[in-house]
Amino acid sequence: MIHFHCDYQEGCAPEILARLQATNMEQTIGYGQDPYSQEAKALIAKLCGIDTEQGERLWREKDTAGSVHLLVGGTQTNTLVINALLRPHQGVIAADSGHINVHETGAIEHCGHKVMAQATSDGKLTAAQVQDVILSHLYDPNIEHMVQPGMVYISFPTETGMLYTKQELTALSAICRQYELPLYIDGARLGYGLMAPAADITLRELAALADVMYIGGTKQGALFGEALVVCNPKYRKDLRYLIKQSGGMLAKGRLIGIQFLTLMQNDLYWQLAAKADRQALSIRQALLDKGYRMASESPTNQQFVIIADDKLNELKTRYLFDYCERVDEAHSMVRICTSWATRDEDVNQLIHDL
Amino acid sequence: MIHFHCDYQEGCAPEILARLQATNMEQTIGYGQDPYSQEAKALIAKLCGIDTEQGERLWREKDTAGSVHLLVGGTQTNTLVINALLRPHQGVIAADSGHINVHETGAIEHCGHKVMAQATSDGKLTAAQVQDVILSHLYDPNIEHMVQPGMVYISFPTETGMLYTKQELTALSAICRQYELPLYIDGARLGYGLMAPAADITLRELAALADVMYIGGTKQGALFGEALVVCNPKYRKDLRYLIKQSGGMLAKGRLIGIQFLTLMQNDLYWQLAAKADRQALSIRQALLDKGYRMASESPTNQQFVIIADDKLNELKTRYLFDYCERVDEAHSMVRICTSWATRDEDVNQLIHDL
Amino acid sequence: MIHFHCDYQEGCAPEILARLQATNMEQTIGYGQDPYSQEAKALIAKLCGIDTEQGERLWREKDTAGSVHLLVGGTQTNTLVINALLRPHQGVIAADSGHINVHETGAIEHCGHKVMAQATSDGKLTAAQVQDVILSHLYDPNIEHMVQPGMVYISFPTETGMLYTKQELTALSAICRQYELPLYIDGARLGYGLMAPAADITLRELAALADVMYIGGTKQGALFGEALVVCNPKYRKDLRYLIKQSGGMLAKGRLIGIQFLTLMQNDLYWQLAAKADRQALSIRQALLDKGYRMASESPTNQQFVIIADDKLNELKTRYLFDYCERVDEAHSMVRICTSWATRDEDVNQLIHDL
Amino acid sequence: MIHFHCDYQEGCAPEILARLQATNMEQTIGYGQDPYSQEAKALIAKLCGIDTEQGERLWREKDTAGSVHLLVGGTQTNTLVINALLRPHQGVIAADSGHINVHETGAIEHCGHKVMAQATSDGKLTAAQVQDVILSHLYDPNIEHMVQPGMVYISFPTETGMLYTKQELTALSAICRQYELPLYIDGARLGYGLMAPAADITLRELAALADVMYIGGTKQGALFGEALVVCNPKYRKDLRYLIKQSGGMLAKGRLIGIQFLTLMQNDLYWQLAAKADRQALSIRQALLDKGYRMASESPTNQQFVIIADDKLNELKTRYLFDYCERVDEAHSMVRICTSWATRDEDVNQLIHDL
Repeated sequence: MIHFHCDYQEGCAPEILARLQATNMEQTIGYGQDPYSQEAKALIAKLCGIDTEQGERLWREKDTAGSVHLLVGGTQTNTLVINALLRPHQGVIAADSGHINVHETGAIEHCGHKVMAQATSDGKLTAAQVQDVILSHLYDPNIEHMVQPGMVYISFPTETGMLYTKQELTALSAICRQYELPLYIDGARLGYGLMAPAADITLRELAALADVMYIGGTKQGALFGEALVVCNPKYRKDLRYLIKQSGGMLAKGRLIGIQFLTLMQNDLYWQLAAKADRQALSIRQALLDKGYRMASESPTNQQFVIIADDKLNELKTRYLFDYCERVDEAHSMVRICTSWATRDEDVNQLIHDL
Repeated sequence: MIHFHCDYQEGCAPEILARLQATNMEQTIGYGQDPYSQEAKALIAKLCGIDTEQGERLWREKDTAGSVHLLVGGTQTNTLVINALLRPHQGVIAADSGHINVHETGAIEHCGHKVMAQATSDGKLTAAQVQDVILSHLYDPNIEHMVQPGMVYISFPTETGMLYTKQELTALSAICRQYELPLYIDGARLGYGLMAPAADITLRELAALADVMYIGGTKQGALFGEALVVCNPKYRKDLRYLIKQSGGMLAKGRLIGIQFLTLMQNDLYWQLAAKADRQALSIRQALLDKGYRMASESPTNQQFVIIADDKLNELKTRYLFDYCERVDEAHSMVRICTSWATRDEDVNQLIHDL
Repeated sequence: MIHFHCDYQEGCAPEILARLQATNMEQTIGYGQDPYSQEAKALIAKLCGIDTEQGERLWREKDTAGSVHLLVGGTQTNTLVINALLRPHQGVIAADSGHINVHETGAIEHCGHKVMAQATSDGKLTAAQVQDVILSHLYDPNIEHMVQPGMVYISFPTETGMLYTKQELTALSAICRQYELPLYIDGARLGYGLMAPAADITLRELAALADVMYIGGTKQGALFGEALVVCNPKYRKDLRYLIKQSGGMLAKGRLIGIQFLTLMQNDLYWQLAAKADRQALSIRQALLDKGYRMASESPTNQQFVIIADDKLNELKTRYLFDYCERVDEAHSMVRICTSWATRDEDVNQLIHDL
Repeated sequence: MIHFHCDYQEGCAPEILARLQATNMEQTIGYGQDPYSQEAKALIAKLCGIDTEQGERLWREKDTAGSVHLLVGGTQTNTLVINALLRPHQGVIAADSGHINVHETGAIEHCGHKVMAQATSDGKLTAAQVQDVILSHLYDPNIEHMVQPGMVYISFPTETGMLYTKQELTALSAICRQYELPLYIDGARLGYGLMAPAADITLRELAALADVMYIGGTKQGALFGEALVVCNPKYRKDLRYLIKQSGGMLAKGRLIGIQFLTLMQNDLYWQLAAKADRQALSIRQALLDKGYRMASESPTNQQFVIIADDKLNELKTRYLFDYCERVDEAHSMVRICTSWATRDEDVNQLIHDL
């Protein structure tokens, strides 16, 4: 059985395992203050073009927790950021298909905040939508009876693999800054997004538009781990406390440090992502050539296709896809997903069998 | 200025003030365990046709807090009930126009739960919608990644004054029982609902279909206060603790006891509601006669009408309405609201001036 | 049966009921924005010597909710303030006998915060204790693994009726300001405290030392209601939203406005408190004269006495006290409580029967 | 520099890395439903003598999530369990030195619950203490104004390395069952506890006395990971949902499965722990022989010793210890900690240098 089911079905890039092996019996202090984590964080800050200073633990208003933090998983990272940035009466504006609205078992609400879900096509929130939410709140006579919009959450790419253009992101960032709402970018698949041929924005440009974002490791070649980047110094306060409180401060923090250091050195992270995108786009082209109907314009590693049930049953004897939904009596939509680990021979075989 | 703005712009039914006066210097124990509160709770239970037993404070699983509780306000009551009935990963199914989704500043999310908002016309949730939410959850392969539907919230009447029929409520109750979800009815304006000529259900029938409901006092002639009725004994556990924790256990609990006792004795509550409904329906008839376009089919004390801005500006010199929204360049929607306190002469004057 | 059980066993000062009667059918807007509430809030601010400006509802950082807010009850007020002032990883330093630590069913923890309880005699926290908590946190190598002290809670008077001196309060305030922790004073019985002959501080002086405090109504002659005073403008942000979210925004907000206006005009509040203190001190003197052992040095309306069980059983046929705890095989501790409503003839009778 | 600072300063047992390497490119489904996780969970259940059935995902009351779950870290596991087991008004009884009370940045309070901290010597809670808390709650007239005890938390070994005897645990379990409170055992260092020569209880006996417990991986040879064992089927409900909500459901769940499978097969886990205990006890004996004063009677891998500052400064040039506290002007208390990774030559060198 060949898996095109998701991008987290194998272990990790072999370079990472080799480095874990090489460093295994070294003794370092815990909780992310080891040299590997420090080096990884400094490197990520540098790649993002933000200051690399790692924060000072001063008392209260002057406390700052550094610009990069290494966390275990995506739901944890999203909850942490939203919990850190919002006051109790505030909510987070998001696409209704957003991961925080659909697939985190209510983690955001559990930490006290409403997801102010907006209808979108392909999961992309527009600057105009954000402004509408803000203005309709601001001008409501019952303003205090309603959740105050407190931040904006987007994912790049979206849940269906779509990308925002630089222009769209610039507009979103501008409206957020105008109304003092932080813009948070969920980059669980950031590499697949930025390396897509269709992408017109760089990591550094993204970091300049976002207030907070994370660079996903779990789906992009790490065993696990996400790198939280707090681009706007205003939001760095208290983060080490909140990470510990949320259960996100790994005792052997160096494990994530070593992984991100390995991924970010020599561009490994970007190369793995670019390869997966190429594979996905060659599958996409083959599907189009053979007359399949695509369910999304995704230019990244996730391809959504509508497929006849007969054909699907035939393919299922050999391939594992992610079943999305029934389209009509005779057709279904499935997701075909490549990853850092997908082998070219499996891609070629699939293209042959389609 | 004559107010048709809402149903909480005066003090209370004079009978209540008289009784507060008569009992003012009596000494009673606090926190709702005084004789007035006990009598009011027993009377309400009897009117609802549920057992009047007041609960026993036994240890843990055997603890039961009685079938009726007297609380201060609606947001507090809704939050308490939802907090008491849901497990941390569960959400409450509600109409997207529901009070808990729109006008409680995220109180439900603040206590940890998602409002699973459903699009409706006129704020009425259907049994089919509830079943869809449940089934789409049950058959999702990622079931644990999503909020589990844990209860159903409806209001009677809805935010726009609409009523569920007995048939609709029976179907909702049946689907809730089939899937073991409690059905909770927000009755902030329950009297105006049940006394409307169009209503085809009684208090006792409602209590037999609901698991939990509340009978609103604040908008129906009390200074403040809501009577929570826990129809299904399964949900009575722990409530006294949770009421205290939520800040809802009034030290001088007898104040709400005396108010509900006064309202429920001699049918005062129902007479006041019936009068307000009659007034609202006469205004409605006048509006229709004069060619106004109504924005809702409401048969209760809230009437929503579309009105030309010129006419509205003229009326605003004399009357206070609740401005709802702009309809087009020259028209607005307003709410005209009668109450237990509305005077017939004001209604007649308004009808004349329309 | 004559009650000396607590200070919330009657209704309210007759002047309040008269004013509720006189204004009953007036139409005003809701949620505390009526003229009575505005006037009451301005008067309280003036008495406290803080600015009377009622806040502006500007967007986000510039929003300010005014310096005085009228809430329903004490647990609600404490939870609101602590929820408003703390970040998620912060706790509130309090005496271990503090109301928030013992008698609010975990309301503070329910809203997410640890009560950092300190052992005290008579419930009085010292500046040195507060400094110890702060310094032991600041110099701990595992600082982020521990709850950060975020504010200080004291009550004036304490749960056992004790008063802080002006010197003690000045020291507490100074340490709080040095470390930027807000000082919050629970004044559920503030009047009984300030009017005690032993008190050496005024309302205005208290307001200058506190960052936030509340002036209790429920136990001091109101039907219900507490006046929250936000002395330090820094903490006024967002409060209207948070009050609504907590279920604390009474629809007919004027009810509390009218009560506080009545209490604060013509010094009624202070006169009622002074009378209760006088009565309590005359009972105390009688107890001492008759050789009873007092369990607290309380100079306010609550007196704690150790009493032989035989004598207690005799008194219980005529009087209701609050039973505190068993002292030894033959003695118990009880609280004898006077209030705004206690009658001199009942005090005299009790003194006679002791 | 030789570290005796803690038991999480290296990577993991080489057998684990080898197995991660060997399985790295295998494709498995995510979220802990892969064959390695299933096998590890079944093996752990078997070792604990509880049923190995993995739960059924049925609707609501009938849902059960299996008896073993694999989580990432200790704070996360403790918060999850307490969140799952308590109702909103309940607290957890714990020693005041308990990890949840001191070193989790208020994670328990953040999820809404009070830690009902009890003073102890060496962190051991007694059955009598638990009964006192329960009875003083049960017989309080203000029962609903106070946090209800809802479960008991202990750690085995305690924070200072102490062990409960079988008799003590049997008594604790009996009192918990009498009052229907679940008993939860934090086993972050369970192996070091059970393998200590002084231990008189087995894993299987522990599992029979506990309702829920966890077997620590992070501090006992895994890269990370804790195995939650829900001994009492009553508490298995909803756990998969709650794990996902808490951010604890690792996408590549097999990573923890492979680690625990490796540790639990061939007794590797127990052998590593036994070795560390032996090393710690030989250091302890050397300390006693050389006249040092021990600060705890710990028979496990953590040794707490009082040491002259001069000597400490000398040792600090070569060794890293955990500094605990200043004892007097010339002495300090430090923790010397061995682990699965400690080398005999380092132990011998230390003994020589003491």
